[in-house]
Amino acid sequence: MSQYLFGVDIGGTTVKIGLFSENTELLDSWEIPTAKDNQGSRILPDIADSIQEKLRVLSINRESIIGVGVGVPGPVDEEGNVHGAVNLGWNTVKVAEDMNRLLRVPVKVGNDANLAALGEMVKGAGQGCRNLVAVTLGTGVGGGIIVNGNLLIGANGAAGEIGHIPVEENEIELCGCKNRGCLEQYSSATGVVRLVKKKLYKTDKASVLREMKDISAKGVFDAAKAGDEIAVEVLGMFGCYLGKALASIACVTNPELIVIGGGVAKAGEMLIDYIRPYFIKYAFSKCSNVKFALAKLGNDAGIYGAAGLFRKE
Amino acid sequence: MSQYLFGVDIGGTTVKIGLFSENTELLDSWEIPTAKDNQGSRILPDIADSIQEKLRVLSINRESIIGVGVGVPGPVDEEGNVHGAVNLGWNTVKVAEDMNRLLRVPVKVGNDANLAALGEMVKGAGQGCRNLVAVTLGTGVGGGIIVNGNLLIGANGAAGEIGHIPVEENEIELCGCKNRGCLEQYSSATGVVRLVKKKLYKTDKASVLREMKDISAKGVFDAAKAGDEIAVEVLGMFGCYLGKALASIACVTNPELIVIGGGVAKAGEMLIDYIRPYFIKYAFSKCSNVKFALAKLGNDAGIYGAAGLFRKE
Repeated sequence: MSQYLFGVDIGGTTVKIGLFSENTELLDSWEIPTAKDNQGSRILPDIADSIQEKLRVLSINRESIIGVGVGVPGPVDEEGNVHGAVNLGWNTVKVAEDMNRLLRVPVKVGNDANLAALGEMVKGAGQGCRNLVAVTLGTGVGGGIIVNGNLLIGANGAAGEIGHIPVEENEIELCGCKNRGCLEQYSSATGVVRLVKKKLYKTDKASVLREMKDISAKGVFDAAKAGDEIAVEVLGMFGCYLGKALASIACVTNPELIVIGGGVAKAGEMLIDYIRPYFIKYAFSKCSNVKFALAKLGNDAGIYGAAGLFRKE
Repeated sequence: MSQYLFGVDIGGTTVKIGLFSENTELLDSWEIPTAKDNQGSRILPDIADSIQEKLRVLSINRESIIGVGVGVPGPVDEEGNVHGAVNLGWNTVKVAEDMNRLLRVPVKVGNDANLAALGEMVKGAGQGCRNLVAVTLGTGVGGGIIVNGNLLIGANGAAGEIGHIPVEENEIELCGCKNRGCLEQYSSATGVVRLVKKKLYKTDKASVLREMKDISAKGVFDAAKAGDEIAVEVLGMFGCYLGKALASIACVTNPELIVIGGGVAKAGEMLIDYIRPYFIKYAFSKCSNVKFALAKLGNDAGIYGAAGLFRKE
């Protein structure tokens, strides 16, 4: 009898659901809207209904489900409880317990950035690698850290929160976390745009970025590719802060591979060219022989990682 | 029949050896000199001879030895091979294999700073804690990181090399590792003394440190206790760099406890008072509820941790 896994990635707008073979091959994937009203109380029942409907349509019986992995945008403890996920309207939600009651199959829960890292290890850029750091460069900077094949969770489920590594002593603006000088303020999509705006304000230098109505990180990479001086300078700062933070992380966990993903990673290999020289500059020699790779699974990393919680070793 | 463990801590001058009960209680400990001549080729045979002599004297037979754990001042891979330990004159040495051939009992090998961390978890300041960072402040800054009860080793055995986290952009002097601005340049015993000397050179301010022939980290802490302004300023820098680096580490592994040990830790609780405020300033809120403690096992941490490699969970 064939056996199946489900991987669920709960986002602020949509929930992505994947049906996988027992070898974590993706068989089918679809999305449902995230019902954030009423403190998100419908989110888990909606997911359970959608999975049950899929089982019915494909005539899969419950006994052939190995497990359902669920990724959540917030810190998750070892029992699968989520302690605050603002984007979902959640306070403490016992995700593993509630989903298990709804579906009567084994359920495991993880933080979404962590599971994206696990996904890249299981079926993406990190296949075959057991010590890696995955960095997600989007609105913020997220991370997932895998050591000896296992995700680091940490005492409060907050391991891998690398966007808040302090990297700049002289920052005057506040980060979303209320500190100043966090990595996220420079090396996220938002951070890159912020740096461009500051730079444009400070100088009269010509730049194609000056004409743009809505500056995006993509626009900055495109401008840099075309040789725009301001864009190149800002991406130098982006790469310097990120390379330095990754060098710090390398002193802590000594990874073999760093995988870069998230929206900003659409810039492609040039992204790594901006990061690597700074990583090498700052890294301790014994930890510096690290490979860099772009994430391969894109937005599917989360469902792969969620299903990967039930992978066979 | 009683069963026993041995814990061995190979240092640059002496090798410390401990005999432990199966519950990792220390029964006996002694030291032998480290024979560094001939590329340290006598070090392992000397240890084996010493252990065999102890077994003979105490009439313990080999069958009752659960294992011998060995700590080495260098990076150790998963097979128990050491890749370069300059203080011992070693290039690559297959410690686990060689010791096992000499003693015919199970052998496990670890990095000394890592094993000191494990020792503190097993029988020291970190008992009952499964996520901790142990920092050793001595000539350099070493570290050991424990996640979910297990030591982080890393791809090249270089996890926990936190002394080389980059913390200062504007440093002009070189660290021993050839980078500039490493934590070790400010927060080791050597680093504190270096900062004092620079400060004394730059200012005419009165200071008891000016009269000292050989300034030591201990002298600086004593001076600070007596209200010496230069000493207080330097310890502020010491604590700021260390607190910031620990805040970075907390973003990565989210520990529950930070244990501070090594020679500098003899300063006692005032040491933590210099570090904690900066840790709290720089730490990400979700990772900031960390306890600080002074190491308890002193120079015995290494043998406890080495024996602890064979502990029952």
